Amino acid sequence: MLAEIVERLGGEVVGNPEVTVSQVATLESAGPGDIAFLAQGRYLPQLRATRAAAVVVAHAQQDATSVPRILCNDPYLYFARVSALLNPPQEVEAGVHASAVIEPGARIAASARIGPGCHIGRGAEVGEGACIAAGCTIGDETRIGEASRLFPSVVVYERCVIGRRAVVHSGVVIGADGFGMALDAGQWLKIPQIGRVIIGDDVEIGANTTIDRGAMDDTVIEDGVKLDNQIQIGHNVRVGAHTAMAGCVGIAGSARIGRHCTLGGGAIVLGHIELADGVHISAGTLVTKSIIRPGTYTGVYPLQENRSWSRTAVLLRNIDQLEVRIRMLERMVADLHAKE
Amino acid sequence: MLAEIVERLGGEVVGNPEVTVSQVATLESAGPGDIAFLAQGRYLPQLRATRAAAVVVAHAQQDATSVPRILCNDPYLYFARVSALLNPPQEVEAGVHASAVIEPGARIAASARIGPGCHIGRGAEVGEGACIAAGCTIGDETRIGEASRLFPSVVVYERCVIGRRAVVHSGVVIGADGFGMALDAGQWLKIPQIGRVIIGDDVEIGANTTIDRGAMDDTVIEDGVKLDNQIQIGHNVRVGAHTAMAGCVGIAGSARIGRHCTLGGGAIVLGHIELADGVHISAGTLVTKSIIRPGTYTGVYPLQENRSWSRTAVLLRNIDQLEVRIRMLERMVADLHAKE
Amino acid sequence: MLAEIVERLGGEVVGNPEVTVSQVATLESAGPGDIAFLAQGRYLPQLRATRAAAVVVAHAQQDATSVPRILCNDPYLYFARVSALLNPPQEVEAGVHASAVIEPGARIAASARIGPGCHIGRGAEVGEGACIAAGCTIGDETRIGEASRLFPSVVVYERCVIGRRAVVHSGVVIGADGFGMALDAGQWLKIPQIGRVIIGDDVEIGANTTIDRGAMDDTVIEDGVKLDNQIQIGHNVRVGAHTAMAGCVGIAGSARIGRHCTLGGGAIVLGHIELADGVHISAGTLVTKSIIRPGTYTGVYPLQENRSWSRTAVLLRNIDQLEVRIRMLERMVADLHAKE
Repeated sequence: MLAEIVERLGGEVVGNPEVTVSQVATLESAGPGDIAFLAQGRYLPQLRATRAAAVVVAHAQQDATSVPRILCNDPYLYFARVSALLNPPQEVEAGVHASAVIEPGARIAASARIGPGCHIGRGAEVGEGACIAAGCTIGDETRIGEASRLFPSVVVYERCVIGRRAVVHSGVVIGADGFGMALDAGQWLKIPQIGRVIIGDDVEIGANTTIDRGAMDDTVIEDGVKLDNQIQIGHNVRVGAHTAMAGCVGIAGSARIGRHCTLGGGAIVLGHIELADGVHISAGTLVTKSIIRPGTYTGVYPLQENRSWSRTAVLLRNIDQLEVRIRMLERMVADLHAKE
Repeated sequence: MLAEIVERLGGEVVGNPEVTVSQVATLESAGPGDIAFLAQGRYLPQLRATRAAAVVVAHAQQDATSVPRILCNDPYLYFARVSALLNPPQEVEAGVHASAVIEPGARIAASARIGPGCHIGRGAEVGEGACIAAGCTIGDETRIGEASRLFPSVVVYERCVIGRRAVVHSGVVIGADGFGMALDAGQWLKIPQIGRVIIGDDVEIGANTTIDRGAMDDTVIEDGVKLDNQIQIGHNVRVGAHTAMAGCVGIAGSARIGRHCTLGGGAIVLGHIELADGVHISAGTLVTKSIIRPGTYTGVYPLQENRSWSRTAVLLRNIDQLEVRIRMLERMVADLHAKE
Repeated sequence: MLAEIVERLGGEVVGNPEVTVSQVATLESAGPGDIAFLAQGRYLPQLRATRAAAVVVAHAQQDATSVPRILCNDPYLYFARVSALLNPPQEVEAGVHASAVIEPGARIAASARIGPGCHIGRGAEVGEGACIAAGCTIGDETRIGEASRLFPSVVVYERCVIGRRAVVHSGVVIGADGFGMALDAGQWLKIPQIGRVIIGDDVEIGANTTIDRGAMDDTVIEDGVKLDNQIQIGHNVRVGAHTAMAGCVGIAGSARIGRHCTLGGGAIVLGHIELADGVHISAGTLVTKSIIRPGTYTGVYPLQENRSWSRTAVLLRNIDQLEVRIRMLERMVADLHAKE
């Protein structure tokens, strides 16, 4: 019932408060029993056509529909809360699957679940309510915090720490060796990577993302960080609390990313660089120097039809010649001016 | 025998039609018993030197060699067919390996194979002739179509659908949560990802590629799509039929890619963007706006020796100053002209 | 004892040679019992403040500290050797875990280890002292060389060869099909990938990196190559000895990378391109043509604040118009000059 929802989450019902909703949906695909939302004005046509049982809208849109509605300040956030209410995480069935291999000295909390085919190393700890799905490997002495959830086929190397309520998706590798080598007469000598990965609370890590262990000190991911899929975090990186990175981002070794930053998809940050708190890097941008002021930064070659691009690229590659021609013109024009 | 090949695949034999071939090879590495092909004129020197037992060439190249040869319209395509003929997929040994864990309600077709250490969820379905190799995890109620082949260590989350004759390589993760969050006073609130991934027939997915489930509606990969390795497909993306993407491509959430498109390696498409049918994006290009006309589009910074690049990059970053200097010159020259 | 270290590794002790060290650390985090190093002058303040028991410095820095120290020519390399001395690789406990599945005809050396849940294919070979950690899959007839170490959840497809002393991190996929297809009336026809992957000795491969098998000939990674995480190597690529690639690099099919090259993070090399020995490609650079001279090459759009970038990008996209304006000015100025 809408009345129950506003009782729990705030907001104001306009229309029948006894309408019941059981699932969230988009304005377009919603049917009876669904609640949808309007976050931006450009979806007003969809709002008008929606068959949703109820919608969440901003106060300003109160009259944009006759569907039973909840008014609130931030419909997107409100909707996220409604969805969390209607879609609680699956209950964890406690217990260790018969096919899992638990090494001596590992401590599995009574309410935790260890799925089929998992391998839990010596002295590892899995906290209360944690769920380690099928085929995960947890290294020796690694700790997985309470209520954390590892999806199938996650690997965490030895001596790492994952905090509470983590969500770690399939294929993630945490704690593999950093890329540390010294040149020895043209050949690469591996430097043992003896640091750890330390991950705070409420961190989410997307599928196939990799976070390397530190060379000597630790790689650190602070509380509330959200990483999308296929991100690469090098050794000794520190990612500040509540920073979010979209898919395919790469952070090279020893970079320090501030708090409340965002990095767009495919952005790359070079090694040893520092980003201040509140820095936003656009998708596809390569960060080659430290950024000390909050703000949005971009470095993206503009897309063109291929033929135009060829012409542009040639001119760009020879932009110094354009500059020379301008300089020469300036001299000649100054000359003409003087003679006048 | 060449005669048998042309009987099955068409084309015309020149030379001894009773030459037998048992394997395909490149012109350079082919030996007795091998059949090679010439797709482009620039490989004519290799054709002359080849030790292949037979070759596939275009009609126009009929006289470019004395090796027994098959003439056809499209040697590359013809060769692909010959290779498929000589290299049929390995027969699937039906049966469920003793070490696999099959949850209640899962339906495994009699002719399907489930490899060692697999975990098949409740109510999941595996179709006739499908092969799930070692260490795969299939989520609850997920369906794998007939004759599909999952290589080792693939993870498909719950409630997803993979069509017939799919080829899914190792490390692929299908159906992990999309990257959906709302900002709540500086912290990220996760939005449950309740959509699915729906994959059509004849789709191939390269190693370590990830395809996220939809936030509310589904993520859809249509028939005949071919994805290379390490591609990231965000939630609610739709990829049109027979589109191909090279390695390391990233498609952000809710983007819609048309049919018969190609995306070069490392290309990135931002969220909510639409590409029309028949759009070709060059490697390394970032697509920041929708493209409604078929064609080839590029946005790539041209490579230079590092020193030249430094100079170019400085001029580019200050290109507005070049423009100002040009404008000033234009004014002065107009002035001089007027006074003349 | 420092005296023992210099006896094994060379160099010269200044200060008490009987100081004992048990672990390496950074200048900042070192405590009693730790040895640190100074590689670059800019860390001199940290050297002055260090609590390390000993440090490794260049001869020129002999007097920069009073801490017991080892003088050498290349402190970074020396330190790498000290670290290797103090952190030898974990001893391999020989034996096949009871839960591993070994197919008929596989040969596992007596001193090798096969971890829980591994699947070793028919006719595969695992050399002396090799360690295959939990959940790995080794394809039929694949060979893993002596003393090689595969971390959990590595997949090597059939008929591949990995040399001696390899280090292969979790999630790596070696030998998946290359991305080879022919267009058949708008649909893609898969070309069987019948080549192999051949990897030399002393190669390290980072987490979630993928190396595809050749289409007909083999994909080859020569001795001493070091690959970071999430790298994609296409079919029929050859990577020359002692070349190193940072995270997220992509090498398209049939490219040939020379020896002693380096590729920065996220760099992409297009198909069929050749890089000479000793070529260095900067991070984020797309290589669109072969490079025959050693040197450093870059192609990176410079980062700007977003607003400046917008302006720059518009001017860049229309740089041909700037050139036209310059040409017109040149004509007019020449005119004025002539009339003078």
